[in-house]
Amino acid sequence: MTTTNVETEPKKPTGLAGVIAGKSSVGFIDGKVGILRYFGYDIHELAEHSSFEETVYLLWNGDLPSPPDLADFTTSLASQRPVAPQILDFIAAAPAGVTPMGLLRTAVSALGQYDPDAEEMSIAANRRKAGRLTAQLATLVAAIHRARDNLQAVAPDPALGHAANFLYMLRGERADSTTTRALDVALVLHADHGFNASTFSAKVTAATLSDLHSAVTSATGTLKGPLHGGANQRVREMLDDIGTPERVEEWVDAKLEAKQKIMGFGHRVYKVEDPRARHLRDHARALQGDQDAGATDLIAVSQRLVEVMAERKGLAVNVDFWSASLYSYLGVAPDLFPMVFALSRISGWTTHVMEQYADNKLIRPRAEYIGPDARAYVPVADRD
Amino acid sequence: MTTTNVETEPKKPTGLAGVIAGKSSVGFIDGKVGILRYFGYDIHELAEHSSFEETVYLLWNGDLPSPPDLADFTTSLASQRPVAPQILDFIAAAPAGVTPMGLLRTAVSALGQYDPDAEEMSIAANRRKAGRLTAQLATLVAAIHRARDNLQAVAPDPALGHAANFLYMLRGERADSTTTRALDVALVLHADHGFNASTFSAKVTAATLSDLHSAVTSATGTLKGPLHGGANQRVREMLDDIGTPERVEEWVDAKLEAKQKIMGFGHRVYKVEDPRARHLRDHARALQGDQDAGATDLIAVSQRLVEVMAERKGLAVNVDFWSASLYSYLGVAPDLFPMVFALSRISGWTTHVMEQYADNKLIRPRAEYIGPDARAYVPVADRD
Repeated sequence: MTTTNVETEPKKPTGLAGVIAGKSSVGFIDGKVGILRYFGYDIHELAEHSSFEETVYLLWNGDLPSPPDLADFTTSLASQRPVAPQILDFIAAAPAGVTPMGLLRTAVSALGQYDPDAEEMSIAANRRKAGRLTAQLATLVAAIHRARDNLQAVAPDPALGHAANFLYMLRGERADSTTTRALDVALVLHADHGFNASTFSAKVTAATLSDLHSAVTSATGTLKGPLHGGANQRVREMLDDIGTPERVEEWVDAKLEAKQKIMGFGHRVYKVEDPRARHLRDHARALQGDQDAGATDLIAVSQRLVEVMAERKGLAVNVDFWSASLYSYLGVAPDLFPMVFALSRISGWTTHVMEQYADNKLIRPRAEYIGPDARAYVPVADRD
Repeated sequence: MTTTNVETEPKKPTGLAGVIAGKSSVGFIDGKVGILRYFGYDIHELAEHSSFEETVYLLWNGDLPSPPDLADFTTSLASQRPVAPQILDFIAAAPAGVTPMGLLRTAVSALGQYDPDAEEMSIAANRRKAGRLTAQLATLVAAIHRARDNLQAVAPDPALGHAANFLYMLRGERADSTTTRALDVALVLHADHGFNASTFSAKVTAATLSDLHSAVTSATGTLKGPLHGGANQRVREMLDDIGTPERVEEWVDAKLEAKQKIMGFGHRVYKVEDPRARHLRDHARALQGDQDAGATDLIAVSQRLVEVMAERKGLAVNVDFWSASLYSYLGVAPDLFPMVFALSRISGWTTHVMEQYADNKLIRPRAEYIGPDARAYVPVADRD
């Protein structure tokens, strides 16, 4: 009944791996040697010297800002953080046990109903919306995080930078500079990564000339999936499951024996260590001192896991591996990790959507048909 | 500063045209001769004999139902139409002038917060969610349509079929059988069409193993774009702009002279008349008698346009062309056409998402990098 040759094994679907889906000026990735650049700037230099605000400016403008441009941009982004009270009410009223990323998807979509430029498609309007979305997403994430504990949302403080303000809205008190810098670097590192699944979904949505809120809503829903946004959460669960550095070897061998995947290692793009990993590790280590001694020693277990996986499988860590420890030390609950990632990646989503608009064509691939051959319709009354 | 040869013209982006993005058993399309089948059944037979409920059963099961299975399925779908009052309140409270498809995107996403199976990923749970989403979407669309005129939502009537109940919720009174059948046939015809942009966006979202509500939210946002869901709305605007059959020739020639696109003709897939078009035309004609004489004679203008476009460009109509008249005669406002399309296409979206889950791989293509070469980072204080 099918058009495929039944004697051949069905091929594994490819997921467009290696297929060029379009051109982009945003990021250069060489997975063989571990190079990542945003508009020509090496990720290592950005991680060491840049802030999230500067990185977002770079992504949206293709160049680093002058000192006055950076100051203006930072002030402008900070001024756009408030969200409509109706949306905060919807978050506060959400049923208990609702999935944070699902609620974020709805809240991001709802921002469109309250955005003065929602349906404006000019370049200037899209820049304004990208600014509001990036600023407001942090407010939504902090509100959703607090609503779980029945805590009221904390109003943003325009005097604080993006990372510092997010930590303030999350915790209700100001964070120290080590903590703020750790988050800021994580935001720089996660800002963009080519046509990853969430960014690509934003492009597919935008390519019908749908609006920026639609595209970012698609990306949020795509990031919600465990194969994308859930990876660092599962790294954290794995670290807790292992418990101590002494148990790592035995634990890894049991997993490999059972042919189970070990989270945080290997990447479809990088064949060597993900260039973002070392910075996340260093900042996680810098934060470690503040933590309760009772919890899992995430750093020690992680470090031993890196050694054992290199020995056993020759596999290096990906971006999710050390972000699990870093996010944990920031005080973020593991099931909220994808939301913190979204906080940063929204800058890449909006960049790629604006790039899509600038040279747009509908994205519509084809399917290989493997269904039934033509058959005659029998009216329902005549069916057995 | 770029890696491309500046002497060559940049290639037009391809939008994955002709690229196989995966396998599918759902629909067979031969655009050269104008064949469309759902699971082997010709669209002409389905348009003549089938109902929306039967078509949805076919899509989700791969086979037509027996008489008792169809009766059970119809009853079950009808029982799942109510939506959480919080979502109807959100719709009623939306700011005036909000875009209907944007509001539908938020409302569909919010259904996930109230679905008992929201995060369940079993085949059975996904079937249940597909049923609820398909049933509830009609309730949302009718509520959004009525909210624009400050009319309260009408509670669904489980005694009515899907098409009849939607018209009842839309108008607040029962529709006659000619009108009900016209909508039912339109729902059958629009149910699925391969990896179209909205369906493909649903697949990209689902391929991270994100949930069905996320995937359908992405599809709704993608359909919102004028290159996808807005086409029949623009056909209607064009018919009104032309006004009378006598003006068609002059109007077409002026547009062609100005190299402007004429809506409703040509299709990326079909090179001949879209097989769905004739059924939409026939049902639009059947409804025409009920209409006010004062409005544009949509049928007469459309018919003349078909003749002139065949003469001048050799182009046949696509699915959007006659649906503009049909939807108009159903009493749907032109800017709400994409929502009525969503009413049907959600059956295809959910089918393709379930097919994606059954043999999943993350969808992550690559970009061709055309941005700047590597350059050195200069600290902000040292920049000019």
